[in-house]
Amino acid sequence: MPVKKIVNEPEAVVIEALAGIAVAHIGLVRVDLEQRLVIRADAPVLGKVGIVSGGGSGHEPLHAGFVGAGMLDAAACGAIFSSPVPDQIAAATRAVDGGAGVVHLVKNYTGDVLNFRLAAELAEDDAIEVVTVLIDDDCAVQDSLYTAGRRGTGAALLAEKIAGARAEAGGSLAEVAAVAARVNARSRSFGVALTSCATPGKGSPTFDLGPDEIEVGVGIHGEPGRRRVPHTSAAEIAGLIVAPILDDLEPPPGSSVLAFVNGLGGTPLIELYILFNEVQRLLGERRIGIGRSLVGSYVTSLEMAGASVTLLLLDDELEALWDAPVKTAALRWGA
Amino acid sequence: MPVKKIVNEPEAVVIEALAGIAVAHIGLVRVDLEQRLVIRADAPVLGKVGIVSGGGSGHEPLHAGFVGAGMLDAAACGAIFSSPVPDQIAAATRAVDGGAGVVHLVKNYTGDVLNFRLAAELAEDDAIEVVTVLIDDDCAVQDSLYTAGRRGTGAALLAEKIAGARAEAGGSLAEVAAVAARVNARSRSFGVALTSCATPGKGSPTFDLGPDEIEVGVGIHGEPGRRRVPHTSAAEIAGLIVAPILDDLEPPPGSSVLAFVNGLGGTPLIELYILFNEVQRLLGERRIGIGRSLVGSYVTSLEMAGASVTLLLLDDELEALWDAPVKTAALRWGA
Repeated sequence: MPVKKIVNEPEAVVIEALAGIAVAHIGLVRVDLEQRLVIRADAPVLGKVGIVSGGGSGHEPLHAGFVGAGMLDAAACGAIFSSPVPDQIAAATRAVDGGAGVVHLVKNYTGDVLNFRLAAELAEDDAIEVVTVLIDDDCAVQDSLYTAGRRGTGAALLAEKIAGARAEAGGSLAEVAAVAARVNARSRSFGVALTSCATPGKGSPTFDLGPDEIEVGVGIHGEPGRRRVPHTSAAEIAGLIVAPILDDLEPPPGSSVLAFVNGLGGTPLIELYILFNEVQRLLGERRIGIGRSLVGSYVTSLEMAGASVTLLLLDDELEALWDAPVKTAALRWGA
Repeated sequence: MPVKKIVNEPEAVVIEALAGIAVAHIGLVRVDLEQRLVIRADAPVLGKVGIVSGGGSGHEPLHAGFVGAGMLDAAACGAIFSSPVPDQIAAATRAVDGGAGVVHLVKNYTGDVLNFRLAAELAEDDAIEVVTVLIDDDCAVQDSLYTAGRRGTGAALLAEKIAGARAEAGGSLAEVAAVAARVNARSRSFGVALTSCATPGKGSPTFDLGPDEIEVGVGIHGEPGRRRVPHTSAAEIAGLIVAPILDDLEPPPGSSVLAFVNGLGGTPLIELYILFNEVQRLLGERRIGIGRSLVGSYVTSLEMAGASVTLLLLDDELEALWDAPVKTAALRWGA
């Protein structure tokens, strides 16, 4: 069955959304419609390490909604579920280079990894030093349709926020890259889909999921996870999500995590809070405290119903950088 | 067909979500699970006018997500799509009374109006002065299944923010109520549904909408609007929404509005930006400027796909109060 959407021509979706972003967030960002970039309004910030991310569109607010002071300097926006091309990423890198080098935060999908690598080479031809940090926090699958190794999901937001704060505070290229890598190493994510989603081009669901089943370990493009199981309660779903994260992350009893309960796009906020409640119950049983939390639809897969959880094992530095001011369209505090 | 949800027992949905909110936003709010209230952590603020809102659940983040400094002092949470009862609202009023009186911001639905009136009487028995401001910005229908007169939708958020800022700045009970009433009088909203939604209790869609039709002028409980039309482009949908708002609000050419493009729950953010782009094009044709904007799913109807637009005719005072710091779970800046 076709999925109804608020769009004009499917091929214009990204460009028209960017045009909307340009007007809605004037003063915060500027938009390069030709290259499909969202750039911090005051970029380049001289002497500050620049941070560029990007990826396929359809995951909003990731990444365009996280451009601004204290987070990303630019986001390169690909077509729906497709990597941006090297020229776009290189243009973003040039636009934000303040002379201190640029960090590329790249979710680990084959196309993104390749295109960011080529873009880094183009930027280096212009004498811009680039350090790339791969995000591969999704512990559901080791390899997938779109990746060699683990996929990158919710930790992208956490790395963007925390590395952004480190850059804002005057961190060097190596320091900003190191803290992003540390966020990734200390984060694990796992998602469950209740429905599929439809790209505007195709118009109908990208995969089939029975009326009574859920996909456990789903990726943010609807790529398959570990298995399908009958639909079940929030408490059971929380167990399916939290167990593999804890098995892989192994946070010691008494430790503190940032708990990020993320909606995949079509799940109401009230359900995300119910899931959060179950997650905190399960963590409490293991004597793991929730030091920081984030609940909402931030790393999405169009209108897919479902949720993912990302846990980041905190320390004092990560906590302080998380708390630092940020001023973006989708994440803002202290500014 | 049943709609899959992340819930446990349907009757526990509101209480379990509130338990999640309590942990996720510790320090910002406290939760009274027995009365189903979300209360600003430092309430009552002595000498400050208190602001209480509330209504049926299923519209999150409205209202619970807007409790905090610079916005609501408390939200009373009813069952899904059902008004809170008078005892709840009276308890909220007592919890936030700092001695300067309390404003009740009430969306114009029959049950809410009645229950807030009874609650105001209970509070006045305790010598708390209450002034009630009705929100009735939805210009789609004059009367509906749930209302005498127009429904209250997106302007609730705007009134909460702006009246909250006025209260924070030391406004008197009369001043805070007056600015909320002024926001309501200068706001108009109109919504379009692409799909129905399902309450956890019923489990299946509350109304039927054909695969190729949309409901124009829908309410936030799925109650019927003006008519059904074939599904169409974002540009046409924007026209269906903006025309009746402008007909009713009559903003003069050269004026400036706050444009709030709101998702009803199941519509991806990328589509909301496309709609925003169309709205700004239509306003530009009438020489109406967008002075402030808000894009996101803030006044929702569970997982319903669709969107509403609220336009608020700005003036210098409203603009300054909109820009004032706010610190809530769902709306935050400058703090």
